[in-house]
Amino acid sequence: MVRDEAPAQREHCVIALRPIGCIRTPFSTATGTPIQSSAAHGVEGTIELFPRYVPGLRDIEGFERLWLIYQFHRAVSPQLLVRPYLDSVEHGVFATRSPARPNHIGMSAVRLLAVEGNRLRIADVDMLDGTPLFDLKPYVPAFDHLEVKGVGWYEGKSVDGAVADERFQVKRHR
Amino acid sequence: MVRDEAPAQREHCVIALRPIGCIRTPFSTATGTPIQSSAAHGVEGTIELFPRYVPGLRDIEGFERLWLIYQFHRAVSPQLLVRPYLDSVEHGVFATRSPARPNHIGMSAVRLLAVEGNRLRIADVDMLDGTPLFDLKPYVPAFDHLEVKGVGWYEGKSVDGAVADERFQVKRHR
Repeated sequence: MVRDEAPAQREHCVIALRPIGCIRTPFSTATGTPIQSSAAHGVEGTIELFPRYVPGLRDIEGFERLWLIYQFHRAVSPQLLVRPYLDSVEHGVFATRSPARPNHIGMSAVRLLAVEGNRLRIADVDMLDGTPLFDLKPYVPAFDHLEVKGVGWYEGKSVDGAVADERFQVKRHR
Repeated sequence: MVRDEAPAQREHCVIALRPIGCIRTPFSTATGTPIQSSAAHGVEGTIELFPRYVPGLRDIEGFERLWLIYQFHRAVSPQLLVRPYLDSVEHGVFATRSPARPNHIGMSAVRLLAVEGNRLRIADVDMLDGTPLFDLKPYVPAFDHLEVKGVGWYEGKSVDGAVADERFQVKRHR
């Protein structure tokens, strides 16, 4: 097996991302925002893609759902232990979908309603208005729809109707 | 509806991420690497988490699968139109899972075999050895396992046994 260079050297590197657009939603604050797209049935929003990326949308209209990879831009500093919305005890942040994670990356599979130039109308949005978007990928059941039994502490928890509160949100000053 | 600040201002901002660890796999080159974790049945690898993040793993052992969010660290510069592995015609990069995307972010749902300190043994790996890891999230069917019919140009394509080639990989010089 050929091994790559010493991985420990990468601990202190920084990788720069540039948003490809912005997600507009009805949610200006965490309180009341659905905690997952699967708890946000029908809530509509818009992706405003920066115009230079529009050629990358070719053939996207055939997909029913898209993964959005985005920044939790108003989340608090990372916490390695968090008390998530659906539980009353602490878990390691990597065993949760909490926004207070190192790198503040979120992912949601939203429904694609229409493509209008650089704007994509979407539904089942669960992110805050103004969220910077890093990537769009098609949701492909052959890749993403996996049979999984072990769901750890989520066992028996229901996401239906679950909404967020302020626990992971930076306070605004304006 | 309260709107966030002008999103167009964010086009030129840069968001810095720091890897939380490194993914070790048997694949030192794209050629022959499975193109998705769902095409990589049983191929084993290891996550080497940087030790300071270990507290964030608490309770992760209850999950059967984890989403890995990582950098396509050896992918070529972004292309807005790509000819993906599973097709002979070009599509917009956002209608594909090609690595040659703006921001070079990949995601795979791998199986978790064991947690040993800062090392996680995993299976169904489809990324190159040395891949920088940005995030780990539990795969939760209630969030991720969605009923989707429209799969665009992927309709009728099979990922079974599909492996990558060099088309999206930077040449190495060493």
